Amino acid sequence: MRRVRYNVAASLDGYIATAAGGYDWIPQDSTVDFAALFAKVDTVLLGRHSYRAAKQAGETVWPAGSRVFVFSTTLRPEEHPDVTIVNANADTVVANLRTEPGDGDIWLFGGGQLFSRLLVAGQVDCVEVTIAPMLLGGGIPLSASGAPEVQLTLEGTTQYPSGMVTLNYHVRGTSR
Amino acid sequence: MRRVRYNVAASLDGYIATAAGGYDWIPQDSTVDFAALFAKVDTVLLGRHSYRAAKQAGETVWPAGSRVFVFSTTLRPEEHPDVTIVNANADTVVANLRTEPGDGDIWLFGGGQLFSRLLVAGQVDCVEVTIAPMLLGGGIPLSASGAPEVQLTLEGTTQYPSGMVTLNYHVRGTSR
Repeated sequence: MRRVRYNVAASLDGYIATAAGGYDWIPQDSTVDFAALFAKVDTVLLGRHSYRAAKQAGETVWPAGSRVFVFSTTLRPEEHPDVTIVNANADTVVANLRTEPGDGDIWLFGGGQLFSRLLVAGQVDCVEVTIAPMLLGGGIPLSASGAPEVQLTLEGTTQYPSGMVTLNYHVRGTSR
Repeated sequence: MRRVRYNVAASLDGYIATAAGGYDWIPQDSTVDFAALFAKVDTVLLGRHSYRAAKQAGETVWPAGSRVFVFSTTLRPEEHPDVTIVNANADTVVANLRTEPGDGDIWLFGGGQLFSRLLVAGQVDCVEVTIAPMLLGGGIPLSASGAPEVQLTLEGTTQYPSGMVTLNYHVRGTSR
């Protein structure tokens, strides 16, 4: 079974981007081992807002050659030929991706709404949050309002010179 | 100068209590060193909601003998004789507490609104968040919406058997 990993950077107060989608508050830190993540991932999942923000950034922010699925009911597939637009049944699509052959990981890139929807459907295995030493005071939340209450198990932590700290969890289940 | 320390437990998604003020999602963990905190603190600051929640809990949740200041424009001082109700000029009151003689710490117990107000006024020295292995999906936020963007410096982390992780920061300043 392939794992779905919600791997994001967040501020200490739980935002993954500013309200405008900005990421410039995340410290550049060359000691963060993106290579380890990229080596394991072959599939990327994004909501519409996260996809727009990633395209605006203009860089390759996921492993080259990955299959990219963007969950949106408004984007037109013909305008985004490099990705697969999924406009219905996100839960089923992800459930099918998880049972595909192979052992590549599925990177849930963001955002909070897609995360919350997949949590409800029991389709998220790991939550990996790199906390930047910032309070944003607002922005795009790590988990959407109204998401279920979910218990996690801490797997480990990593501290970086920039003051970022990665907290790795696996999902135990919803408690209510 | 006495330090103001915002020391709270929070969910991974940045909530310090459920919407109803509940704390029962925070694991009991006897290895958390409350004694070290209690030994340093002689003054406690709370907003109205946090004060109500603490009273409902019915336990002594701060050091015995502490001076307790509750910031509220609606609570009536005569109904709360054990604490000092502050209904105006929170910033000035806290600025004065910080410059009092002695080296006892001032514990900003909660909540997010009081924290944000004191951040704006430059009256918070340390942010110490113990992250429980939970996603709440909603509740009382760690920092109030509209709080300033604030840069922090990581001082250290502590990991507990329950899966809680304390992140200790000092406040560098607001960036915008």
